[in-house]
Amino acid sequence: MKEFELTILGCSSAKPTRKHHPSSQVLSYRGKLFMIDCGEGTQQQFYRYGLNHNRLGHIFISHLHGDHCFGLIGFISTLELHYRTGEIVIHAPSDLECLLRPQIEYYCGGETLKIRIEPLPPKGGEIYNDGTLKVTSFPLKHRVPTFGFRFEEINKLPHIIKERVERYNIPLRLLPSIKDGADYITPEGEVIPNGELVSPPTPSVSYAYCSDTKYTPSIIPYIKGATLLYHEATYLHELEKTAKKRYHSTALQAAQIAKEAEVGELLIGHFSSRYKEETVLLNEAKQEFVNSRLANEGLKIKF
Amino acid sequence: MKEFELTILGCSSAKPTRKHHPSSQVLSYRGKLFMIDCGEGTQQQFYRYGLNHNRLGHIFISHLHGDHCFGLIGFISTLELHYRTGEIVIHAPSDLECLLRPQIEYYCGGETLKIRIEPLPPKGGEIYNDGTLKVTSFPLKHRVPTFGFRFEEINKLPHIIKERVERYNIPLRLLPSIKDGADYITPEGEVIPNGELVSPPTPSVSYAYCSDTKYTPSIIPYIKGATLLYHEATYLHELEKTAKKRYHSTALQAAQIAKEAEVGELLIGHFSSRYKEETVLLNEAKQEFVNSRLANEGLKIKF
Repeated sequence: MKEFELTILGCSSAKPTRKHHPSSQVLSYRGKLFMIDCGEGTQQQFYRYGLNHNRLGHIFISHLHGDHCFGLIGFISTLELHYRTGEIVIHAPSDLECLLRPQIEYYCGGETLKIRIEPLPPKGGEIYNDGTLKVTSFPLKHRVPTFGFRFEEINKLPHIIKERVERYNIPLRLLPSIKDGADYITPEGEVIPNGELVSPPTPSVSYAYCSDTKYTPSIIPYIKGATLLYHEATYLHELEKTAKKRYHSTALQAAQIAKEAEVGELLIGHFSSRYKEETVLLNEAKQEFVNSRLANEGLKIKF
Repeated sequence: MKEFELTILGCSSAKPTRKHHPSSQVLSYRGKLFMIDCGEGTQQQFYRYGLNHNRLGHIFISHLHGDHCFGLIGFISTLELHYRTGEIVIHAPSDLECLLRPQIEYYCGGETLKIRIEPLPPKGGEIYNDGTLKVTSFPLKHRVPTFGFRFEEINKLPHIIKERVERYNIPLRLLPSIKDGADYITPEGEVIPNGELVSPPTPSVSYAYCSDTKYTPSIIPYIKGATLLYHEATYLHELEKTAKKRYHSTALQAAQIAKEAEVGELLIGHFSSRYKEETVLLNEAKQEFVNSRLANEGLKIKF
């Protein structure tokens, strides 16, 4: 069963174009939505792709460049217009508080919806954990403090082997404890070891997000073995010097990172507007890492 | 010759929808562009409709509700990315300075483009005058301080009557002074009165913008006889009470204002998202003022 669904709301770099919106994505996991970055116009994209704001509790902002955060105030305002209640936590570099709070106080009523801004730890670390999903941040290398995020299933339970339950006639009420590791003791006192009753859990699925960053193998430990990796690929490798100077990556470099980190699949985005057709970027990435694909507005990936 | 061209960038109310963008318009006059309101996503719309940011010197913000100003920071950032130089003046309610300035200072380099925020006079008045075009602001009635704007040609010169120039054999170098009102004295000393040499100037063309406001005849002196009037028409008149409570207007009320002010044409906008098809609003307006039309993104009107 595929638990994650990623929806791309925007994958342009620097500014919106006729074709692309600035960075924003929504990751869905078991009914909960997690937004990653929130460029200008994100609210329009969010509703365009049928997402439900009542399921959204956390927004993760990678860094404070406008194309990754200018959509926050409009999105929050609109949530209030929709009478969204409760709390939304924005995990962002610490400067966001003094930039966004005065706007929230001026433009939004603040009567029903609480916005909490949680500063990202400067060196990265665990920033969310609900017992089944964990989010960690880690430093990227960009012109301002920038963070990648890894979303990972945790505490996955083993699968009950139905045939054994029937063979030993195990009462249904005991199944949760068996999932948690208990042995089964038959009415006759025989101990059936837990290992006979369950098969290993489905491997944990994970998603890693890396934008914006120059090529840096220092991120590999953080994204190692991710099921899906989003990595920025602003330029073709022929512009490697430009990429380095502006702290961005080329498509080839994104693929090198994917390969070294042994991820399952690579999704590239944050395209420079100079590429009218991004297949050139995809082709470059595929030469290094064949399981690559292009981000695009409205793309949904289940994994 | 039609000197004005109005381009609608957005005409939704409160929030963007799948169909409409938040309020923004650009008025072009003799090569200069004037932006009126700047809702979220305006930058994308501005370039979508082929407008040239080098021609833009002034932005007029009617009031500080997000759907009329959230696009400013993104637009300014992108102007800097495009290396736009010089100065842009934002005419806006005075609170904008302390809301927008910290963002400009944080997100924009500020090295080449200067942003000056000119507070609108609380009671309205002349806010721009370049000798051929004058802009005046006037108070509307909304939940926060809100202003309408009137753009009007001034100091229009009379037309030289070509046949008289030929008859009296007037040297070309004297035509500017004749346009300015001088008589012509022939080499023989005969005085040809100015009135014989020129015909009256083309009547001044003007544009009035009224959004957001509840129905208030107090604005009529300010918009009297405008060639084109944009007036908000958020609701059908069956929601008159809602309109009044929220300080908005109905389509019928917009048309009543147009009729009383004896404008040439009425353009309605700022549509509530409840109307999937705005022709119902247009039909209502036309019952009162036949020369009415609907705003829509990308609409261009020359006048």
